[in-house]
Amino acid sequence: MQFHHHVIENVTPAVDGGRYPAKRIAGEPCIVEADIYRDGHPVVRAAVRWRRRNERSFNENPMTPLGNDRWRGEFPLAKNTRYVFTIIAWTDSYASWLGDFRKWVEAGRSDVASELLEGIALLKAIQKRATSGDKAAIGDSLSRLSQDTDGPAALAIFADSNLNEIASRCGARVDPTTYAPLLEVIADRPRAMFSAWYEMFPRSQGNEPGRGTTFREAAVRLDDIQKMGFDVVYLPPIHPIGHTFRKGPNNSPAATPDSPGSPWAIGSDAGGHTAIEPALGDFEEFGYFVAEAIRLGIEVALDFALQCSPDHPWVSEHPDWFYHRPDGSIRYAENPPKEYQDIYPLNFDSPDRDAMAEEIRSILRFWIEHGVKIFRVDNPHTKPVDFWEWLIGEIQQQNPEVIFLAEAFTRPKMMKALAKAGFTQSYTYFTWRNTKLELTEYLTELTQTSMTDYFRPNFFANTPDILMPVLQNGGPAAFRLRLVLAGTLSPSYGIYSGYELCEHDAIPGTEDYRNSEKYEIKVRDWNKAGNIKDLIAGMNRIRRSNPALQQLPNLSFLSNDSDQILVYVRATADMSNVILVAVNLDPFSAHECTAIVPPAAIGLAAGKPYTVTDLLTGNRYQWSERNYIRLDPQRAAAHVFLVSRGEA
Amino acid sequence: MQFHHHVIENVTPAVDGGRYPAKRIAGEPCIVEADIYRDGHPVVRAAVRWRRRNERSFNENPMTPLGNDRWRGEFPLAKNTRYVFTIIAWTDSYASWLGDFRKWVEAGRSDVASELLEGIALLKAIQKRATSGDKAAIGDSLSRLSQDTDGPAALAIFADSNLNEIASRCGARVDPTTYAPLLEVIADRPRAMFSAWYEMFPRSQGNEPGRGTTFREAAVRLDDIQKMGFDVVYLPPIHPIGHTFRKGPNNSPAATPDSPGSPWAIGSDAGGHTAIEPALGDFEEFGYFVAEAIRLGIEVALDFALQCSPDHPWVSEHPDWFYHRPDGSIRYAENPPKEYQDIYPLNFDSPDRDAMAEEIRSILRFWIEHGVKIFRVDNPHTKPVDFWEWLIGEIQQQNPEVIFLAEAFTRPKMMKALAKAGFTQSYTYFTWRNTKLELTEYLTELTQTSMTDYFRPNFFANTPDILMPVLQNGGPAAFRLRLVLAGTLSPSYGIYSGYELCEHDAIPGTEDYRNSEKYEIKVRDWNKAGNIKDLIAGMNRIRRSNPALQQLPNLSFLSNDSDQILVYVRATADMSNVILVAVNLDPFSAHECTAIVPPAAIGLAAGKPYTVTDLLTGNRYQWSERNYIRLDPQRAAAHVFLVSRGEA
Repeated sequence: MQFHHHVIENVTPAVDGGRYPAKRIAGEPCIVEADIYRDGHPVVRAAVRWRRRNERSFNENPMTPLGNDRWRGEFPLAKNTRYVFTIIAWTDSYASWLGDFRKWVEAGRSDVASELLEGIALLKAIQKRATSGDKAAIGDSLSRLSQDTDGPAALAIFADSNLNEIASRCGARVDPTTYAPLLEVIADRPRAMFSAWYEMFPRSQGNEPGRGTTFREAAVRLDDIQKMGFDVVYLPPIHPIGHTFRKGPNNSPAATPDSPGSPWAIGSDAGGHTAIEPALGDFEEFGYFVAEAIRLGIEVALDFALQCSPDHPWVSEHPDWFYHRPDGSIRYAENPPKEYQDIYPLNFDSPDRDAMAEEIRSILRFWIEHGVKIFRVDNPHTKPVDFWEWLIGEIQQQNPEVIFLAEAFTRPKMMKALAKAGFTQSYTYFTWRNTKLELTEYLTELTQTSMTDYFRPNFFANTPDILMPVLQNGGPAAFRLRLVLAGTLSPSYGIYSGYELCEHDAIPGTEDYRNSEKYEIKVRDWNKAGNIKDLIAGMNRIRRSNPALQQLPNLSFLSNDSDQILVYVRATADMSNVILVAVNLDPFSAHECTAIVPPAAIGLAAGKPYTVTDLLTGNRYQWSERNYIRLDPQRAAAHVFLVSRGEA
Repeated sequence: MQFHHHVIENVTPAVDGGRYPAKRIAGEPCIVEADIYRDGHPVVRAAVRWRRRNERSFNENPMTPLGNDRWRGEFPLAKNTRYVFTIIAWTDSYASWLGDFRKWVEAGRSDVASELLEGIALLKAIQKRATSGDKAAIGDSLSRLSQDTDGPAALAIFADSNLNEIASRCGARVDPTTYAPLLEVIADRPRAMFSAWYEMFPRSQGNEPGRGTTFREAAVRLDDIQKMGFDVVYLPPIHPIGHTFRKGPNNSPAATPDSPGSPWAIGSDAGGHTAIEPALGDFEEFGYFVAEAIRLGIEVALDFALQCSPDHPWVSEHPDWFYHRPDGSIRYAENPPKEYQDIYPLNFDSPDRDAMAEEIRSILRFWIEHGVKIFRVDNPHTKPVDFWEWLIGEIQQQNPEVIFLAEAFTRPKMMKALAKAGFTQSYTYFTWRNTKLELTEYLTELTQTSMTDYFRPNFFANTPDILMPVLQNGGPAAFRLRLVLAGTLSPSYGIYSGYELCEHDAIPGTEDYRNSEKYEIKVRDWNKAGNIKDLIAGMNRIRRSNPALQQLPNLSFLSNDSDQILVYVRATADMSNVILVAVNLDPFSAHECTAIVPPAAIGLAAGKPYTVTDLLTGNRYQWSERNYIRLDPQRAAAHVFLVSRGEA
C-alpha cells in the first residue's frame, strides 16, 4: 500500500470531468485551476504538465495558490492543434522544514539543535541531486553552518532566497501525485471564436429572372460582401440536385420543368457529395470563386448535408447505406405527418457502416483539398453524436484548422452534446429569444456558465428556414435591432442574404419565407432603397476594431428601468476596451430609461464622469453612474458606445 | 466502428463523477436521475441496473422521462451495505414505428401499405423472442392483420395495450448503451443520519474529588443520559495513558503526581490501542458499561486517535512507524510554536506502512468484536485521505454497520474530502456560526448543495476543546438557543457533558475550558440548580417523534424582518410532518419580528389559517401567512412549532 498525501480535484477546464475536450483559441494561454491540498501542514507545490496531443514528452509550468486551496497555472496554446494536460502536486521537504524552523526561531526557542541537524541533512540530500553550480552554492551554505550555530544565525543562512530557489528546483519531490485522466484542450484558430457569416445561394446572384448564375458569375457578389465586412461566405449545398420527387416553388411536391430544386436534395447522375451541380459550373469555376474570396479576405464555408436524393450514386452503388422497408423500398426522410420524398437519410446502423463512415470522411478531405476549411453541418442531431466525435476528431487530426458549425435546432441537451462532441460553433435559439428576459436568461447561460468551455454560439439573425415574426412585422427597425443584438451579443454571427434588404415576406403563420430561395432562383437589386448595408458594414467594422466584441464570456447585463431596453457591457480583461450597448427591443415605439452603470463594470473609479462615443453615429456623451437613454427605432434602435476615460 | 445512438450523462447520485460513493440510508429507495436522449425521433427506453456490490448479477428497474430529456428511476436499498448501479438506454423499434404509424393514420394518409408491412415484420421478430403465452398473443394480433387492412383498423390492432406491453418487454433492445463507470452508493443504517450524541469522560462520573471512576461506576450515569434522550454516548480514548511528558492541569507541561493525564496521550506499559487504562477497570467492566448502554438503547462510541505517547508499546516494538530525526530522536507532535511532547504522530510514509496499516485495521476489528460500532476519529486531516478511504472500506466490507465520525476542524476542502473518502458523519463549523447570515449561508451549503450526497453534519454544541464566546458570556439563554439550533438544524447533533449544567468557565481569550477535564478528574452535581436537562430531554423527544427533524436536505429558511431571529421549516416530502422553528440568536435581549410563511413551504393552501403548537411548551397559536413572533431569551429563546391543518 502507498497512501498518497495530495488531493487534486475540481480541475478546470474539464468538460464533463474530462470526457470531452475543452475549447480555447490558439495564441492564448490556457488557464488551469484546481483544488490542491494535503493532510497536515507541509508545504505543497504543484505544476501543470502539458503537451501537444501528438507529442510524447510533457512540459511543466508552476502553479501558484490563490487561497482556500485553489491553485492556478497556465500553459501556452502556441499552435492550432489539440493539447493534453494534467497536474502534478508534491511536498517540498525543505520548504516545510524551513517554515517550522522559522517559527521556532521567531518564537525564541533556544534549543534548535535537532531541527538544525534536520535542515543540514535535507540540504545535503539536495546537494547530491544538484549539478555543479548549485552543488557549490549549497556547499557554501553548509560550510557556514555547524551544530552550534544559533537559531537566528542559522535561519539567516537557511532562508537565503537563492538557496531556497535551488532547493525548490533540485530537491526530491516527495509523494508526487498526478491527476488522472489527461484532460484535452482544442486550440482552434481565432476564426472559430470570432467570425461574421454571410449565407448565399450562388445560383441566385444574377440579374436575369429564371437564369441561375455560375460560381464565376456569383463571385461578382464577393466584393459587396467584403464591403459589408463579412469574413465567411457560406454556401448551401453546391452538389448536383436530384430529379426524382424534386420540389417545386414553395416546397410543392410538383416541380415545374424549370424548377431548380432544393440544393439539400443531393445527388444526381452528375454525381454526389464530391461533385458540383452542373448549373453552377465546374471545379475550375468553383476554384475561381474560392480564390476570389481569399483575395478579399473571405473564407468559403460549405454545407455538409449527409443525405441523398433518390438519384444519388450511392443509392445504386451502396444500397446498404440506406434503410430498406419490408417491401424493398428505401425509406425516405419523414417526420409524420411531414414527408420528404426527395431525400433519403443514411443508415448509421448499416452493417456496411465502416465503409460509409470512411466515405463520409473522404468527402470532407476532398473539399479540404479544394480549399474549404469551414463546414456548416446540416441536421447533425439526426445522426449519432459519437459519429460526429469520431469524424471531427479524424478530420482535425490532419487539419486542425477546419471549423465545423452545427446546424442543430433541437432540444437543449442534444445541442450541448454536439458541441461537446467537437463542433467548433453551434447554431442557437437566438432567433426565438426576443424579450429582455429571454435574451438575458439565454445569454447568461451561454456566457456565464461552464457552457463557455465547449459551446461557441453563432447568432444567425435569419436563415432560409427562419424568418421570425419580429422581422416579418417589425419593418427595417426590427432588422436593425436584431443585427446589433446578433453582432454584439455573440462574437460569431451571421445573416442570410436578403437580410440587408429587409426581406420579410413570409408564408402567413409560419417562419418560412414566401417563394423561398430554396426552391427558386432569385433575382435581387442588392442596392435597393431602404437597404441596411451601411449599418451592417458599420457593425462589422466596430466588431473588428474592438477586441471586447471578439470574446464570449466577457458579457454583463446592466440594469435599467425599461422592460424594452437591454443594456450590456463587453470589456476586455484589462479594461482597455469597453463597449457598452443599449438596444430598444421594440421596433414599433420609442422607449427611454435610466441606465445604471456601476463603475466597476466599465473599469473606472466611482464618481468620475467619462465619455461614451456612439460608434454607429460618432456622437459623444458625458456619462456618470446614472444615464438617461432614449431610443427611437425609426431613427436608431441602438447605441454601441465605446467607453473612454475623462471628459469629451 | 459502431456509433452508439444514446447519450447518458449527468447521472445522480454521483460524487465527483463517481470517484467516490454517494451516501444514503438503508430502507429508503435510491432515486436515480440522468439526462438520456438520442439522435432523431425514435422512442428511447431506459432502466437502472443495480446490485449489491458484493453480488454478481444486476437487477433492473425501469426509468421514466420527466421532460427535457431528464429521466428518473429508483432501486431499493434493502440492506445496510454498499450498492453499485448504472443506467442502460436503448431504442424501442416497435414503439417508434407505432408512433409514426399513428401519426400517418391520424393525418388521414390512405396508403400505409409499406408501413403496415414494417409493423407486421417487427411483430414477427418479437414473436420469435417471446415465450409461449406472449407468442400466442402476438400470433393472435398478427392473424387479424393482412397487407390490405386499412390504416385505422390496423392501428386499433397494433395499438392494443397488452400487445404493446409484450412488445416492450420482449422486443430486442436496439443499440443498448450502458453508462460507465459503475456508481457506488453506501446504504448506511439509520443512525448514520439521525443521532444524538453525549460526550463524557468515564473517569469523571463520581462524587469524590480527585478519585477517578471506573466503567462500572460510570455506568450509573447512563440512566441520566438516557433520560435526556441521547442514543450515542461517546467516550474520549479509554486506553492506558502515557507517563512521559504527561500534561498537568490546564495543559501545563509539569504534571503533578496525581495528574491523570490526557486520554489522547495513548499507551503505557499497560498497553496501547487495544488495552484499557487500568484506572478505568478491565474488559469486564468495559463490557458491563457497553451492556448497560445497550439495555438503555444507547450505543457506545469510542475515540479513535492514531497517535502514541512515548510509552506506547509500538515505540519500542515498531520504531519504524514513527519519524526519526537525524539526532535519532522521534519527532513528537508539533505545530510551531505549539509542541506536544506527550504525543508521537505515526509516519504514513514509513517503509513498514503495510504492517502499520494492518495493525490499525486490527485495532478497529478488536473493538468491533467488543461491541463498539461507532468511532469518532481524532484529527483525520493529519493522515492521508486515501488511507481513510482504504481503512473505512476495509472495515465496512465486513461490518457495514460501523459508523465513522470525522473530527476534522480544518479547511473546507479537506473536510469535504474526508467525507467523500468514506466518513459517515463529520464535525462542522457550527460552533463558529452564530449570526443569522452565518447560519443561513452555512446551512444552505450543508443542506441545499451536492454536499448532501456525501457529507452528513454532526452539530456538536460544545466539545472539550471548544467553548465558544457565546456560551462563555451568554448565560443559560445561550446554552438553550444553541441547543435548539443544533438539534433542529442537523439530524445528528451532540453535546459534551457539562453543557446541561451550562458550564462556561473559560481561559480568557481562548475557546478552552478553564481546568479542562482533559487533564483533571472532575466531580459535578448533575442536578445542580439551573441545569437545562428538561429542555434537552424535550428537544430529543421532539426530534424522535418528528420525522421532519431526522432528515438533512429538507430545510428551508423563511424571511422575517429581524436580523436576530432565524426562522426555518423542516418538512417531510409528503408534508405529513412540518416543523417550523424560530430562534432568537441574541441571548441578551428580547426580539420580535413578523415572519412570512409561504403556504407552499408548509404544504397548506393559501389563505387558510392553521395551527402551530409549540412542542416545547404545548402552547398553540392560530397562524396565517404573516405572524408576529416575540422571543425573550430569559423565558424562551425559541419556538419549535408543529404545524397542523385547521383551527386550534
